[in-house]
Amino acid sequence: MPIREPDVPDVACVNGEFSPIEDARVSVEDRGLQFGDAVYEVLRAYDGRIFAILEHLDRLARSCRHIRLDAPGVLAELPGQISEALARSGYADAVIYIQLTRGAARRTHLAPDSIRPTCIVTVRRVEQWYRDEQANGVSAVGFEDTRWARCEIKSTDLLANVLLKQQARDQGAFEAILFDRQGELIEGASSNVFVAAGGVLRTPSLSPHVLAGVTRLTLLRLASGQGIPAEEGRITRDAMADAAEILLASTTTEVIPVVMFDGRPVGDGHPGPIARRLLEAYQSAVRGG
Amino acid sequence: MPIREPDVPDVACVNGEFSPIEDARVSVEDRGLQFGDAVYEVLRAYDGRIFAILEHLDRLARSCRHIRLDAPGVLAELPGQISEALARSGYADAVIYIQLTRGAARRTHLAPDSIRPTCIVTVRRVEQWYRDEQANGVSAVGFEDTRWARCEIKSTDLLANVLLKQQARDQGAFEAILFDRQGELIEGASSNVFVAAGGVLRTPSLSPHVLAGVTRLTLLRLASGQGIPAEEGRITRDAMADAAEILLASTTTEVIPVVMFDGRPVGDGHPGPIARRLLEAYQSAVRGG
Repeated sequence: MPIREPDVPDVACVNGEFSPIEDARVSVEDRGLQFGDAVYEVLRAYDGRIFAILEHLDRLARSCRHIRLDAPGVLAELPGQISEALARSGYADAVIYIQLTRGAARRTHLAPDSIRPTCIVTVRRVEQWYRDEQANGVSAVGFEDTRWARCEIKSTDLLANVLLKQQARDQGAFEAILFDRQGELIEGASSNVFVAAGGVLRTPSLSPHVLAGVTRLTLLRLASGQGIPAEEGRITRDAMADAAEILLASTTTEVIPVVMFDGRPVGDGHPGPIARRLLEAYQSAVRGG
Repeated sequence: MPIREPDVPDVACVNGEFSPIEDARVSVEDRGLQFGDAVYEVLRAYDGRIFAILEHLDRLARSCRHIRLDAPGVLAELPGQISEALARSGYADAVIYIQLTRGAARRTHLAPDSIRPTCIVTVRRVEQWYRDEQANGVSAVGFEDTRWARCEIKSTDLLANVLLKQQARDQGAFEAILFDRQGELIEGASSNVFVAAGGVLRTPSLSPHVLAGVTRLTLLRLASGQGIPAEEGRITRDAMADAAEILLASTTTEVIPVVMFDGRPVGDGHPGPIARRLLEAYQSAVRGG
């Protein structure tokens, strides 16, 4: 049993009911648990303000449409629940997790019409800041993408991602970078990937296989503000080998340079100037700078 | 709120604790819910006896190995929990659902070493017997497989299956039959598929994309006992169009003939003799015949 520490008021809200996170439960017949029939978002609060909340809620609504999870009332109540959960926690810097499942019902692939969604919000203190990874870079290895064909949907069907992360860790790497069968870059197991070469920043175009990352979009905008030419397009695994810089982007890790890819140094094997400038710009932007 | 009917003693067991199914809960941070980091089995009891329990438990252990879920103690306790749950329910005919998740932990793709699995068993009265579908057949439509590359693992990452079932229902069909990009038959969204032509029964060979169905294996054995030549191999979508019979096989639906595929009658548009003989043999076998 976990010991509840009174000074760690991690908060959960399940269908509007607030509780300490340890007490928050869902039915064993929740379709999120039995079918991965669920979508989610991860947000960050900095100095008490949630970064890019509209972008995250827009994407959540898009994910819901993709899986035909019709929950307008639930989506309408979410901003209030998120604010209250964050306020109850008292955290200035927090990780906010939102999960919407199709709800609980007797198990059968097609949900009954009468089902009502389950809405979960959790607020956790930020424990991992990734400062070392951001400053010194990480290693990454490439894998063929084994995930499903609709990764533009931010669903909780993440076992492939978990297994790919296990394999990356087996090789001492921080991230698994995924390629299609033709050797084209897709994204990381839990990040979008950018490549810099000849002073130009590139990232794969959106497709059914690529998540429309909020951090990805933020970096594309920040790059242009920084005078760094940025474009979306095709990137081959061969081109990755010649890149001056490789960057990982996600809400929780922000911007992390990859200094070793597939066992070889990226560029000179140290974090490059584009990663450094974008990380600074990002960390300023999230705090309202 | 669901109304608990006192005469419906559906039973759950979560980590060894028994309760009515409505009271059975897991943490909102269970990795089964947040990552689809879980495997499962569905079993049937007939006349108070669980059919093919060893085959199901073997496959569950195999699924655990595939995802590196190390739970020997949990697997060892499962047979006793299943028996007790079935006994508590008092049902002679039941659907038994088993789910093993990697456990609950603060959300991060790689689970902490200290995590302990969550083990769920539920026992439900059989409500759907599929007698009409078995007797009169169903329609099915073909789709390109959008699932992940490791469908030999019986994981709960089933959103692709759910969406494919939605699309099949949109076309008035009972099942979505999945093909790879080259047009080769894989399996159904919740069944294995057999094709009969020229008196020979065929089903796709096992591969990372095909679940080693317990009903599939049972039918292959029963066919040989019935003097029906049966083989595993490649089946193209074109060959499906010329099939005399198409059959769906799963634990809950047993054997269901497909009489309409992609909008065209299969054979003469009625359940065929091989489906009928296999269904009879199967229904005899599950009751110890």
